[in-house]
Amino acid sequence: MANFDLFFQRLEERSRWTNEYLLQEKYLNRFAPLDIREAVTSYIKYGGKRLRPAILLFSCGAVGCDELRALPAAAAVEVFHTWTLVHDDIIDRDGTRRGQDTVHEQFRKLSLQRSKHPLSPSNAEHYGISVAILAGDVQHGWGISMMTELATERGVSPDLVIRLINILDTFVLNTLVEGELLDVQYSHLPVYEVSEEQVLDMLWRKTGALYQFCAEAGAMIGLNRFEPEHPYVQSLGRFCSLCGIAFQLQDDVLGIVGDEKVLGKPVGSDLREGKHTTIVSYAYSQANPAEKQWMERVLGKSDATYDEIRKVTEFFIHCGALDYTIQKAKKYIQEAVPLLNQLPETEYRQLMEAWAEFLIHRTF
Amino acid sequence: MANFDLFFQRLEERSRWTNEYLLQEKYLNRFAPLDIREAVTSYIKYGGKRLRPAILLFSCGAVGCDELRALPAAAAVEVFHTWTLVHDDIIDRDGTRRGQDTVHEQFRKLSLQRSKHPLSPSNAEHYGISVAILAGDVQHGWGISMMTELATERGVSPDLVIRLINILDTFVLNTLVEGELLDVQYSHLPVYEVSEEQVLDMLWRKTGALYQFCAEAGAMIGLNRFEPEHPYVQSLGRFCSLCGIAFQLQDDVLGIVGDEKVLGKPVGSDLREGKHTTIVSYAYSQANPAEKQWMERVLGKSDATYDEIRKVTEFFIHCGALDYTIQKAKKYIQEAVPLLNQLPETEYRQLMEAWAEFLIHRTF
Repeated sequence: MANFDLFFQRLEERSRWTNEYLLQEKYLNRFAPLDIREAVTSYIKYGGKRLRPAILLFSCGAVGCDELRALPAAAAVEVFHTWTLVHDDIIDRDGTRRGQDTVHEQFRKLSLQRSKHPLSPSNAEHYGISVAILAGDVQHGWGISMMTELATERGVSPDLVIRLINILDTFVLNTLVEGELLDVQYSHLPVYEVSEEQVLDMLWRKTGALYQFCAEAGAMIGLNRFEPEHPYVQSLGRFCSLCGIAFQLQDDVLGIVGDEKVLGKPVGSDLREGKHTTIVSYAYSQANPAEKQWMERVLGKSDATYDEIRKVTEFFIHCGALDYTIQKAKKYIQEAVPLLNQLPETEYRQLMEAWAEFLIHRTF
Repeated sequence: MANFDLFFQRLEERSRWTNEYLLQEKYLNRFAPLDIREAVTSYIKYGGKRLRPAILLFSCGAVGCDELRALPAAAAVEVFHTWTLVHDDIIDRDGTRRGQDTVHEQFRKLSLQRSKHPLSPSNAEHYGISVAILAGDVQHGWGISMMTELATERGVSPDLVIRLINILDTFVLNTLVEGELLDVQYSHLPVYEVSEEQVLDMLWRKTGALYQFCAEAGAMIGLNRFEPEHPYVQSLGRFCSLCGIAFQLQDDVLGIVGDEKVLGKPVGSDLREGKHTTIVSYAYSQANPAEKQWMERVLGKSDATYDEIRKVTEFFIHCGALDYTIQKAKKYIQEAVPLLNQLPETEYRQLMEAWAEFLIHRTF
């Protein structure tokens, strides 16, 4: 069993470092007008697990370097992840995140309530979306600018920094966007038109690619040179890529049987949105023709009743679909962990193993 | 009188270089799925004047360097400008650009017309917006990644490249976003609540800042060092900043009296959107109480009739508001042009003078 006590202690420290780095006055003063300043920092202030910064810092430490050299990159990937959430929340029409309003929802409400010149409902909705689009754009730029601070403030080789920025803003960004748009496109298709393979590929794009970047960037910053073929970089990258898929599979599990209060989002929303998951594909493959018809009717039905959602959930449990996905996530982690053997034997190996185990045991 | 023949010839060459650089196969292959690939290149294929790349290249040439060293940056600023257009078009609810569909409009229509699984009207509208948000995000990353190519492919100092990326993704980006959101916020306010000073500040943010960057970046790439205080860099930056405001003033003039067919957007849309311009502020200051009331009623009225628009236009002409703004744009150019005297005497000085004159004489 992984050493979770040590892991949570280290995770919390790194979360604090990241938050302190992000909430520096010099950054906040850049953002104007006021609505943008609040929108840009909103999700960051909501908190979060900061798993991406942690794994980037651990990877830097794992190759024998002081983790603090990589801190601007850790903060950068967190903000980079955040802007994709802000834009995805518009696209997925989500009203809540971590139990609070999403950015577009927050500014929709605000513009309705202003004492001077409140907007009409349709203008307010559009204003909320406008602020969220622009806030995500600002966060994107902020993330990239923190990457430049690796060179200007932490002595990282400018050549390496340039390569990392290029990877982040092409390979990682394009992969994330492709994953998000595939997710949208799949949600408009019937269950039987999207294979499990397509779902897994989409999951990797939505999560695995950025996790892989965190590991590779952390390791190369630790080595202080652009060497993507280095065995440490390769094994850490592959480790994180696999863990990223497991993370997303666990997200799908929590979307069906998670605790609303802990997750901060209504359970059943994945089903009402018609989200394609490995749970859905497996359940469909196990269903008889009548059950198939019924699934096709309920999945993606935005006004599905509580009873309908409950019935689908029970079917997913009884046909083994939920367990199928839980086991699948475990297999990814089991494939990932041995890759850590290629790293020097330090505490970081334990931390990364615990990080991987946490991804599939977490309830939030 | 500026040498426009030479200017147009040089502009066309640089436009071709920029287009060829942007439409390289290696870039296009990065963008997926298909809707993203088409959305990302859509505005670039519509064409455009490429004034930003041209001034960046001229600035590089003006300090005595081969312009081609700066070509990736020229392509980068064009794409950077493009993503702001794609996102602004969603925010401004514009359906057409350069006489063709805006990105969100194009994909709204497409998703309605698919032979398999066409979307409902409200899903189609949301899908169009989703594709446009993601396409802009991809363009943003693409622009930054081309900046990195200055170092990896053109021998520009990595330190300079890092500084330029940082300026582009903080100062320039934040200024553009602030300008856009102020524009949105002002459009919900009555005419008398926004001063001419506020309008001019907003114009500088929306256009001046990026033009200033083009000049400074071009000059520093030419010098191959980060030296923002260098007299060439300073005078070119100030020159372009002033020209940028003049450019935007001319845009406002064309929004009132331009030719629809040449501009590719319906004349009167600025008035129907309630856009705050120096033309509007001046006209309001000249109006009697009855005219003021009538202006307040018509400006921002999205279904204003052709007759109402014509009447406002005539009032703007007769009260001198249109001429006021035309003269104001001229003054900016007159202040800008002498700054060129601080540069070495080369053909580039003539080209930049012609570029400045073109900004306020253009009809498109």
